[in-house]
Amino acid sequence: MRATLLYGAGDVRVENVPDARIVEPTDAVITVTNACICGSDLWPYKSMEPSEVGRPIGHEAVGVVEAVGADVRTLKVGDVVVMPFAYSDGSCVFCHEGLHTSCLHGGFFGNADVGGAQAEAQRVPQADGTLVVLPVGNDDALMPSLLTLSDVMGTGHHAAVAARVGPGKTVAVVGDGAVGLCGVIAAKRLGAEQIIIMGRHADRITLAEEFGATDVVSERGAEAVERVKQLTGGYGAHAVLECVGLDQSMETAIGVTRPGGAVGRVGVPQDEKMPASQTAFYDNVTVSGGPAPARAYIEELLPDILDGRIEPGRVFDRIVGLDDVPNGYRAMDEREAIKVMVVP
Amino acid sequence: MRATLLYGAGDVRVENVPDARIVEPTDAVITVTNACICGSDLWPYKSMEPSEVGRPIGHEAVGVVEAVGADVRTLKVGDVVVMPFAYSDGSCVFCHEGLHTSCLHGGFFGNADVGGAQAEAQRVPQADGTLVVLPVGNDDALMPSLLTLSDVMGTGHHAAVAARVGPGKTVAVVGDGAVGLCGVIAAKRLGAEQIIIMGRHADRITLAEEFGATDVVSERGAEAVERVKQLTGGYGAHAVLECVGLDQSMETAIGVTRPGGAVGRVGVPQDEKMPASQTAFYDNVTVSGGPAPARAYIEELLPDILDGRIEPGRVFDRIVGLDDVPNGYRAMDEREAIKVMVVP
Repeated sequence: MRATLLYGAGDVRVENVPDARIVEPTDAVITVTNACICGSDLWPYKSMEPSEVGRPIGHEAVGVVEAVGADVRTLKVGDVVVMPFAYSDGSCVFCHEGLHTSCLHGGFFGNADVGGAQAEAQRVPQADGTLVVLPVGNDDALMPSLLTLSDVMGTGHHAAVAARVGPGKTVAVVGDGAVGLCGVIAAKRLGAEQIIIMGRHADRITLAEEFGATDVVSERGAEAVERVKQLTGGYGAHAVLECVGLDQSMETAIGVTRPGGAVGRVGVPQDEKMPASQTAFYDNVTVSGGPAPARAYIEELLPDILDGRIEPGRVFDRIVGLDDVPNGYRAMDEREAIKVMVVP
Repeated sequence: MRATLLYGAGDVRVENVPDARIVEPTDAVITVTNACICGSDLWPYKSMEPSEVGRPIGHEAVGVVEAVGADVRTLKVGDVVVMPFAYSDGSCVFCHEGLHTSCLHGGFFGNADVGGAQAEAQRVPQADGTLVVLPVGNDDALMPSLLTLSDVMGTGHHAAVAARVGPGKTVAVVGDGAVGLCGVIAAKRLGAEQIIIMGRHADRITLAEEFGATDVVSERGAEAVERVKQLTGGYGAHAVLECVGLDQSMETAIGVTRPGGAVGRVGVPQDEKMPASQTAFYDNVTVSGGPAPARAYIEELLPDILDGRIEPGRVFDRIVGLDDVPNGYRAMDEREAIKVMVVP
């Protein structure tokens, strides 16, 4: 089959690899009908050391079940499914607590072990726990929005939950990428009164406003902090969604949080140490979040997508075929595209 | 009056200074009947640059109201009061939210502006909001425990609240100082099922066990993390109270937290960056806490002290007169004493 492999910074190749296949009896294999390029894929795209062995990449997909292992009980060939970016058994103590990213028998997609989703097919371990059958055909017009349940909408929602967004709260969203935009959707959906989008790309800002952002802050650093405070009565926002993962963005996130408020961080931190720890401490700012248990949120978010109440699929502004994936990476890296959908 | 001044690392002096007096009409002045030396006083004691001007120090006190300003409404001369380590007006938006340490008109004791509590008397700004009248005489046998409401018991309680301690939870307490010991009291009081004290001083461990600790971990670093995981079914503790403030202790705190759990930190962080940020992220560990709004907790904790259900005053294992305060610092710094009470 054809699959995307990363060989080093800037070196994305689409090549023939062995077909995805059942390895464990709890596996399924899906034909990928829609995949995406994720903001987190851009980190290795920008920094990976050159390697002779390509690393499979991609962790978001909607597809059709092509084969199931002997122990798979809830899925059948032909089911249209969404695949969260982490696989999970659905039955361990952490899955029961809704933290599927810490599943005792789980793991992540987009590596040599299980393969990556920017490919014609994907092996899915713990298929019963991982995959969710969608009540639509795989050509449904809602497919872009349904695809966001695999990561970006669940991640924006997780940021909002971790930041304790609720009715009447003031919210700031740091980062106007696809996750930040889904964070705006999540904040509005959870009842936020004021939603400040922090970013500087006109197309993204426009979309954020359509999603429910009430204010825009395009400054950076100390000026951005000052501006958010002005917009929030001098205090900062109750809930801040950190959707980038850089030192500077985290420092801004803590800086714009109201004393006693919370930062929900979902941008993968690029540094081992967190900045502004003392600021967070003295202001009793809570820092929460991590990889979103996207699987846990599907049942909650799916009805809103099916009913058209939220339209996270609008974050996709470019579609590429599999052979054109390298160009998709370039477009996202150069901020030409917000988020790229891959149709293998 | 006599007061304690810090002139540099290791250089504590008790000297004559101008009497504490009413400056603002909302002030009171109290005669200090009991004060303490705090673990956080040891940071400047260990690191302050030599200065020609002494810095008043001390922020915990019980006392008797000696004078009140013209606008003070709820206090009268002769009242026996406890003074939280931060002053607060009790009426601003943050005070109403229970975050008195972020009071819009508040501040901290132990500085040139308002003076310090290791002294014969203390000026108390925002007296109505700050001071709480105690329903006992100032010679009551419960006075050591009542004195802990000014900081150390409220701080241990804050760590437990920030770490989301509740019935049935497993708790780890990093640090066996007075705050850690009060953290054990708080965790037990809030219904924790298992309380692991992490420390290595025999006298403190014994006290922790009497306060409700069920397990002791005396290892450090990676070994300590391993040991706590062994004691908690391999997962780590739901709630971890960080009561030290060093890089190493915070790293341990995050390391022993169960995925999805929370660290409540009350040890004043000595570094601007927080370690183990990526570990916390991948495990969805929440980091919360800061300076305890001790004022907010007095109404909740006071009845338990008056009824003898909790005995945080047992953390005091040495009493010094005012002139002997320098020796009290030395004793705490050398771990000869857990916590020193000052009786001016």
